[in-house]
Amino acid sequence: MLKMGKEKVVLAYSGGLDTSIILTWLKENYDYEVIAVCCNAGQVEDFDAVEKKAYATGASKSYVIDIQDEFITDFIWPTLKAGAVYENDYLLGTSMARPLMAKKLVEIAEAEGAYYIAHGCTGKGNDQVRFEATIKALNPSIKIIAPWRIWDLESREDLIAYAEKHQIPIAQSKEKIYSRDQNIWHISHEGGNLESPWNEHLDDIHVMSVPPEKAPDQPTYVEIDFVKGVPVAMNGTPLSPLELLTELNKIGGENGVGTIDIIENRLVGMKSRGVYETPGGTILYKAHSALEKLILDRDTMAYKNLIAQKYAQLVYDGMWYTPLREAIDAFVNVTQEMVTGTVKVKLYKGSCTPAATKSDNSLYSEEFATFSKDEVYNQKDAEGFINLFALPLKIRAIQKQNKKGGETENEALERKVLKGGEFVG
Amino acid sequence: MLKMGKEKVVLAYSGGLDTSIILTWLKENYDYEVIAVCCNAGQVEDFDAVEKKAYATGASKSYVIDIQDEFITDFIWPTLKAGAVYENDYLLGTSMARPLMAKKLVEIAEAEGAYYIAHGCTGKGNDQVRFEATIKALNPSIKIIAPWRIWDLESREDLIAYAEKHQIPIAQSKEKIYSRDQNIWHISHEGGNLESPWNEHLDDIHVMSVPPEKAPDQPTYVEIDFVKGVPVAMNGTPLSPLELLTELNKIGGENGVGTIDIIENRLVGMKSRGVYETPGGTILYKAHSALEKLILDRDTMAYKNLIAQKYAQLVYDGMWYTPLREAIDAFVNVTQEMVTGTVKVKLYKGSCTPAATKSDNSLYSEEFATFSKDEVYNQKDAEGFINLFALPLKIRAIQKQNKKGGETENEALERKVLKGGEFVG
Amino acid sequence: MLKMGKEKVVLAYSGGLDTSIILTWLKENYDYEVIAVCCNAGQVEDFDAVEKKAYATGASKSYVIDIQDEFITDFIWPTLKAGAVYENDYLLGTSMARPLMAKKLVEIAEAEGAYYIAHGCTGKGNDQVRFEATIKALNPSIKIIAPWRIWDLESREDLIAYAEKHQIPIAQSKEKIYSRDQNIWHISHEGGNLESPWNEHLDDIHVMSVPPEKAPDQPTYVEIDFVKGVPVAMNGTPLSPLELLTELNKIGGENGVGTIDIIENRLVGMKSRGVYETPGGTILYKAHSALEKLILDRDTMAYKNLIAQKYAQLVYDGMWYTPLREAIDAFVNVTQEMVTGTVKVKLYKGSCTPAATKSDNSLYSEEFATFSKDEVYNQKDAEGFINLFALPLKIRAIQKQNKKGGETENEALERKVLKGGEFVG
Amino acid sequence: MLKMGKEKVVLAYSGGLDTSIILTWLKENYDYEVIAVCCNAGQVEDFDAVEKKAYATGASKSYVIDIQDEFITDFIWPTLKAGAVYENDYLLGTSMARPLMAKKLVEIAEAEGAYYIAHGCTGKGNDQVRFEATIKALNPSIKIIAPWRIWDLESREDLIAYAEKHQIPIAQSKEKIYSRDQNIWHISHEGGNLESPWNEHLDDIHVMSVPPEKAPDQPTYVEIDFVKGVPVAMNGTPLSPLELLTELNKIGGENGVGTIDIIENRLVGMKSRGVYETPGGTILYKAHSALEKLILDRDTMAYKNLIAQKYAQLVYDGMWYTPLREAIDAFVNVTQEMVTGTVKVKLYKGSCTPAATKSDNSLYSEEFATFSKDEVYNQKDAEGFINLFALPLKIRAIQKQNKKGGETENEALERKVLKGGEFVG
Repeated sequence: MLKMGKEKVVLAYSGGLDTSIILTWLKENYDYEVIAVCCNAGQVEDFDAVEKKAYATGASKSYVIDIQDEFITDFIWPTLKAGAVYENDYLLGTSMARPLMAKKLVEIAEAEGAYYIAHGCTGKGNDQVRFEATIKALNPSIKIIAPWRIWDLESREDLIAYAEKHQIPIAQSKEKIYSRDQNIWHISHEGGNLESPWNEHLDDIHVMSVPPEKAPDQPTYVEIDFVKGVPVAMNGTPLSPLELLTELNKIGGENGVGTIDIIENRLVGMKSRGVYETPGGTILYKAHSALEKLILDRDTMAYKNLIAQKYAQLVYDGMWYTPLREAIDAFVNVTQEMVTGTVKVKLYKGSCTPAATKSDNSLYSEEFATFSKDEVYNQKDAEGFINLFALPLKIRAIQKQNKKGGETENEALERKVLKGGEFVG
Repeated sequence: MLKMGKEKVVLAYSGGLDTSIILTWLKENYDYEVIAVCCNAGQVEDFDAVEKKAYATGASKSYVIDIQDEFITDFIWPTLKAGAVYENDYLLGTSMARPLMAKKLVEIAEAEGAYYIAHGCTGKGNDQVRFEATIKALNPSIKIIAPWRIWDLESREDLIAYAEKHQIPIAQSKEKIYSRDQNIWHISHEGGNLESPWNEHLDDIHVMSVPPEKAPDQPTYVEIDFVKGVPVAMNGTPLSPLELLTELNKIGGENGVGTIDIIENRLVGMKSRGVYETPGGTILYKAHSALEKLILDRDTMAYKNLIAQKYAQLVYDGMWYTPLREAIDAFVNVTQEMVTGTVKVKLYKGSCTPAATKSDNSLYSEEFATFSKDEVYNQKDAEGFINLFALPLKIRAIQKQNKKGGETENEALERKVLKGGEFVG
Repeated sequence: MLKMGKEKVVLAYSGGLDTSIILTWLKENYDYEVIAVCCNAGQVEDFDAVEKKAYATGASKSYVIDIQDEFITDFIWPTLKAGAVYENDYLLGTSMARPLMAKKLVEIAEAEGAYYIAHGCTGKGNDQVRFEATIKALNPSIKIIAPWRIWDLESREDLIAYAEKHQIPIAQSKEKIYSRDQNIWHISHEGGNLESPWNEHLDDIHVMSVPPEKAPDQPTYVEIDFVKGVPVAMNGTPLSPLELLTELNKIGGENGVGTIDIIENRLVGMKSRGVYETPGGTILYKAHSALEKLILDRDTMAYKNLIAQKYAQLVYDGMWYTPLREAIDAFVNVTQEMVTGTVKVKLYKGSCTPAATKSDNSLYSEEFATFSKDEVYNQKDAEGFINLFALPLKIRAIQKQNKKGGETENEALERKVLKGGEFVG
Repeated sequence: MLKMGKEKVVLAYSGGLDTSIILTWLKENYDYEVIAVCCNAGQVEDFDAVEKKAYATGASKSYVIDIQDEFITDFIWPTLKAGAVYENDYLLGTSMARPLMAKKLVEIAEAEGAYYIAHGCTGKGNDQVRFEATIKALNPSIKIIAPWRIWDLESREDLIAYAEKHQIPIAQSKEKIYSRDQNIWHISHEGGNLESPWNEHLDDIHVMSVPPEKAPDQPTYVEIDFVKGVPVAMNGTPLSPLELLTELNKIGGENGVGTIDIIENRLVGMKSRGVYETPGGTILYKAHSALEKLILDRDTMAYKNLIAQKYAQLVYDGMWYTPLREAIDAFVNVTQEMVTGTVKVKLYKGSCTPAATKSDNSLYSEEFATFSKDEVYNQKDAEGFINLFALPLKIRAIQKQNKKGGETENEALERKVLKGGEFVG
């Protein structure tokens, strides 16, 4: 193949110190053109400034892509419908975003004729796996450069020294306390005083929400309408996915809703401590679950709860573009066919509680409950149900009673092969 | 066997209207001696009065048995250690109590030479299953009398009429709004305005706790020590199980902690609405779970979470005395060997949040996190990990790329058997 | 509604003794018009004779419906694709047929304006559940008559006496040894000497296949082509589903393939012993599974194997027309997208062994296996993989080593709350 | 610490070409003392010759350890009791042996004061993971040397050249066709013509068994007694574990029993083709499963079958020394409490079929089956059972019927947020 110019590398670029250094380091070490790609997933950021900064730092091209709608519709809604929660607490905000970002990187690499993708994930985290697994799944020819696993910069001090040496502007003059990742769904916080699990997190950690103590003294109520498992309206007003989530983040954040502080098991084998704020997402998960309780039958709900755990693990592990995730999605979508209705949620001082639900597809109904005896439910049926449901227990009990008496064949067998309580063998 | 006197029936007796009527009805219809048994599982009750009332209503014998310690140690602790939660919300307060009560009824029936046990569960609920399955498992010879499935009393009005006709005192003059079941772990509420899922429950429903809005304006902190998954101390002071739970109920109740309001799927095939207050239990579940996050490895935790769902279903369904429940208990106990440590929990306005954890058995540790590169975790290992972890995705992607070109064998096969998109067959 | 004539009851009619008696009994006891419906699911039967016999026995109308194609396409193929096997052995031949038969009964009842459906299933078996659950799901207004649970005929002798009294011809003069159910997929045998699990089944039990000892002394090979998990051709020749299964039954039966002899757990709480011949079906299950091994990735295959167990239970339990079964089908169908290819199976003296497989979608390939080191698989990656995969084990081990020394906090805690090995509490 | 002599490395040594070369290579490259350890797990081998060969090749010390009893009792029996089968076919013969071998290596390393363990597993297989995970779990301080991932020998030709250069005797003059691993439980075969999945394996591959066609023309029967899930006697004669397995291998092998030929998913992300002969083991798995069918209740059996899949994966992945494997063992052991009884197995031309079972703990019994109606099973109970079991289906069906009519609230909701079939959002 005739190469007319330099090789190209697509860099997942945020505009922060780390990826600015990587940009410089790539140019210094590889002599490639660097194409900086910044995804707007809903984080609070001056994206124009980011674009300019990329050029200023030496990028040959600088993209800013708004992925918010695709993120919500194609990643968040399916995960919400699945009810996927990692280790019973984490709503997967960062995990869901990574595969979409990686997909965008691949698309740009293909469009630009780049054979390399670089990212700024460290070698101890999950995000490297999520990025790289997606890239391998979507275009196995692309080579990956992960500077944190290659270079000899090992600490924040090393970074700052490198930046100063290469005249990279260090925007944040004040000390960076937490390592954070934000998008339209959540913000995560690691590091700082969280590194000791015996420390309580501090109030100043909050970004998308207030601490519960600073929330209003009166509860706030919000009604959410779902169609086939997808939230479509708030307080009776249809909203676009982005509008809806933005509104719920605001109302949830004001009421201090959706902060968790957990130890989690990373895919790469170690535990980490993190605080996550997911104000709107927490409201949606609670509401969706309450609506399902009204509509799904017991067996479907129980099995979906099992499958939700697998889904959560797949998403957490970056296994988005896999046949298994797609197969589970198909399962989930069938279960959501009937999940249409309305949930009223109460927000108060950090708590988020479904207060009332309604749906035409409800399997609960006062009407059924008060049906006269012979129409839907005959109490006399219960005796037969119990007799058969508990039959194995009864047979086992009878079989035990019958054994009382002389030595059984089994007992003779056990005696024959045991000596002093141990098998002869 | 020579029977000198009347047949005997052991009655699960609460002292309330329903079981008082059943006592009378049994005597009227069967001409048996009725032995009334009231279990003190921690409900607020004047047990001396209950005992006397049983005699007054015609019992030949009246037992009151304190089952609180056995309830906590042999039923609540194992369920807590399992992390069992029915349909993601319900902490199984009534479900756990029923098998123990049934066991006591069987023991008394055997001691008294009674061939019958009667209970006051209705034919639409779960409790009839829990009682009867236990009785069948423990003594399959005993016959069960379930008046609600037999008689023609069908409403509260029928009961009151019966009571008046038979001069049974009706203690509660005021209208009974909710159907309730209380023990040391929780209180449940059904009926009243809850019958419509679109009604929010009212503040007056609370018994063991205050509504969140009436809780103190400052958070309360409590520290709980666990040994092998069992809570043993509060704020550093070793307490007996009963003391511990009593204290936690008090402190949790004052802070409005532990109320849920759910639609649940009954075993008998219908949905019901219920409000449950479990103040102390909620604190314990949250604390136990937080401690496990510090200690259990990822694979053990994930699998235990799956098993917890099965455990919850078994307990809910009254399948306590089964080989499967015992086998899962054995599983759980092995996982709890290392679950020793301390959790600090923050209680505030209805929420209950683990704030900090510590344990000698922690798999998290700042020490590991800051290990120099070559000792425990080498970031360069991540590349190899990712390459193999994502290898199936990459192979699939390569295999797809390779297929581009002429018709493959598969495509020829599909073409051969399809006509207009449908199988020929 | 003005009813002009008699009420109607639709009877699941086989032409055998039992349903002939039921037909008579229904007329005797209910004074309804009886509409006899016989489904041809592939059993060996003279259906013209059945139709005539129904009229002769008093039916007002007699249907014979060929359900073979629908049975294979809509019930057998989905279950095969799911890989569903009940209790690791039973290929669900009877279980799959019942919901389709019940659906036909409902359709005819609706067309005929009948409010009742009667069936000849006994009260101890699974089939009553499968029939009635389907009827309730498809038309909850229809009432079910299950004579075996109502009348006082309790034995074969009672039946014969009843038949003689009512001049019902008893076709089988010789003693009926086994209770059997046949369709295009299998034949089941119960009763006779099978009732003791310590008896080996006799050679004379075989209907669709020969005993292995009577099979040819040379192996037979057969090639089966699958498209998206569905078998479409045999030895290179596209066949309709019915042709394919018929051919495979023949070739499998000749080689003694597909007989199992098991104790199974019925849904209604008791165990039963059964022998099942499924010659063609066994070949298909083995072939399909072998092809999946070539194509599915590890995680998908493992999860599908779990889901297959649930699917099998749903089918066995008659829960065909449920949201959960439909949701699992959707899952399965996604996994089958790539399951296209060919399997060569060796049949020999009762065994059925996949001998070779090929597929364009194979994830196995000599080409990959011999790739030079740096292209797909770098052996050096394994070190990193293992280091992270086993990291939790290593951390636990280090943490144990570090604890050696003085009393830890945990040990102090345990000491504080224990006395003589027991908790103080 | 004062080191007086050379560092030591413990080498997993088989006496074959590969590990002989590794021994030499270690001495050449590291200047360590090499301690050769050969585990006798039941493979056919001249262990005296192995011991001598190690010294001749330069080992400072040479161990041969008989691990057969521990292998059977502590690894095979638990896996058999669990019913663990990897990907529905593989009986885990190599997987179970590796952790025990690694444990022995660690014990010798600790006794000898060696800081290194070397093994001859390649970088593409599972065994490297099994060895190394075990070593890390048992002694995280030990360093691992895996020459195949380090050196530049890449093919069999490279090995032979290296051997010739270093005067290492190459015992097998004839070409080595298959890569094999044998122990008391099985022998595996890889490579040769197996590398193409479309090749049938050849008859000459067999080592522990004959091809089915060469087995006797008459079936052979064998009776096996189990106590608590463990096989203890054959044809009525108590045997030691080693005797029993040896006998069953002989009788199974003669009848051509227990050969599988599969594509399997390796842990390290690629598929491989393998043939496994497990003659005695196959008999034991079949017999054990048949006995469980007689004894375990439905719910326990179903759940144990799920857990068996996890157990198989843990064993396959080398995760033996993990809390999760231990926890599942505890589960399994409770389920095996009652699994005592006898199974008669028929062996014929490659097939192995349980023919009859008996146990005092049987939940099946002719006695129960013929109980008169009112004692254990009342057919009339079935109606109640079905009515409640199928209640959710019926409620859903009624709810659907009731919706027929004007536009419902849900429909209005859907209409409001949809436009042309798509959400407005």
